[in-house]
Amino acid sequence: MKSWIRFRLADGNIGFGVLENDRVTEYGGDMFGEPVPTGIVLDLGEVTPLSPCEPGKLVALWNNFHALAKKLEKPVPLHPLFLIKPASSVAGPGDAIVRPKSYVGKIVYEGELGIVIGSKCCNVSPAEAADHIFGYTIVNDVTAADLIAADPSFPQWCRAKGFDTFGCLGPVIVADFDWRSASVVTRLDGVERQNYPLADMIFSPQEQVSRISQDLSLMPGDVIACGTSLGVGSMKDGAVVEVAIEGIGALVNHLRG
Amino acid sequence: MKSWIRFRLADGNIGFGVLENDRVTEYGGDMFGEPVPTGIVLDLGEVTPLSPCEPGKLVALWNNFHALAKKLEKPVPLHPLFLIKPASSVAGPGDAIVRPKSYVGKIVYEGELGIVIGSKCCNVSPAEAADHIFGYTIVNDVTAADLIAADPSFPQWCRAKGFDTFGCLGPVIVADFDWRSASVVTRLDGVERQNYPLADMIFSPQEQVSRISQDLSLMPGDVIACGTSLGVGSMKDGAVVEVAIEGIGALVNHLRG
Repeated sequence: MKSWIRFRLADGNIGFGVLENDRVTEYGGDMFGEPVPTGIVLDLGEVTPLSPCEPGKLVALWNNFHALAKKLEKPVPLHPLFLIKPASSVAGPGDAIVRPKSYVGKIVYEGELGIVIGSKCCNVSPAEAADHIFGYTIVNDVTAADLIAADPSFPQWCRAKGFDTFGCLGPVIVADFDWRSASVVTRLDGVERQNYPLADMIFSPQEQVSRISQDLSLMPGDVIACGTSLGVGSMKDGAVVEVAIEGIGALVNHLRG
Repeated sequence: MKSWIRFRLADGNIGFGVLENDRVTEYGGDMFGEPVPTGIVLDLGEVTPLSPCEPGKLVALWNNFHALAKKLEKPVPLHPLFLIKPASSVAGPGDAIVRPKSYVGKIVYEGELGIVIGSKCCNVSPAEAADHIFGYTIVNDVTAADLIAADPSFPQWCRAKGFDTFGCLGPVIVADFDWRSASVVTRLDGVERQNYPLADMIFSPQEQVSRISQDLSLMPGDVIACGTSLGVGSMKDGAVVEVAIEGIGALVNHLRG
């Protein structure tokens, strides 16, 4: 079970590698191509972790868990319902989530599983989709909740979720992760707020990749945020939010007001 | 008034340059940095025009013309209402708009002005915004119209507008274009369907760049599609659609069923 990490070195250079027991075996080349070890091994303490990939886009699902659909009294969708978060929204582990200058309203966390695409896919079947999944990461799909319905004529999903730093990713990408037996646990200032099983997902990762690839080409490094479930809530300025998935790790960020 | 064009050469290489009277003066380097002439001049007939830039994202406005707002009986928005079309949706001049395999419904054209960003901008004022506008192009913001409201609980703007080839751009980017005196004219199989003045815009290009830069960082090559006005309609498979703006040119695409 390989854990891929991307990082900044003390000299400012950016690298990536495989994390094992706080040791990073550095690789070179293309993470999604045929990366090769550089021969360098680093202590995790020597590097600053970055978002583990640089997605061209994040495809973020809405209403993809049975428990949340039931609570919101929404029908189970026939096709993944999604919006797009831009590359400019990505933040890494430890990064501040920055409150937009123009916005004083509620900012909510949404702990989610992220699917990292390994190779371009377009119109693939669920069986083929597995080959295009590089691995899994953790997403905090941060949302300026008051904006979604601020204009009654047009729901502003992309704006509310598209601010810089509102797409937190990390800390690593784990290949061969078994999502079926894992849960997403979100803690706000140390207090558990979300704890939901990924097995409750409506569209499985393979189904998501297959169906979304009917809509748009998915590219290496793109991330699908699988949607959240119960327990979403708002964060006060200064709050620390941790999204943890056993087998991947914990993604920690704070809200900077 | 420089017209920038991006193109593929007969040998498959991709280049860019300045178009003048069917002659292309090739440039090297970064179009948005400090491009320098290579010394090569080509006939337009020797090259295949491509989308004039490769946006990381397209920010597409909804309800940005007074005439359309009036017809739809929608209030004038207080802030640009937008969705994001991914880089994977971009098509160039002459490219086919490809009907998605999974979709048999209405596909509509939307002729629009496109703003091409020249340098990263975040939280800029309308006055500062002018410096971040590299130039203007033409957009056909193609839409699988039946999908928008297919799920009553979630309007699928990104899906309906995000399919591969649904973001037609081109044929060139014109710096110093005076949008105030120009109109967008859309012809379907040679018949005029849209003819609206850009002066009817609700948020001017500078206001769009300023306000959207409060929401998300705009990057070099990103395109803002300024929204459409009256006359949107559906295309039959095989139809040829031309969006023309005097001073920029004509963007021609066809719908492949």
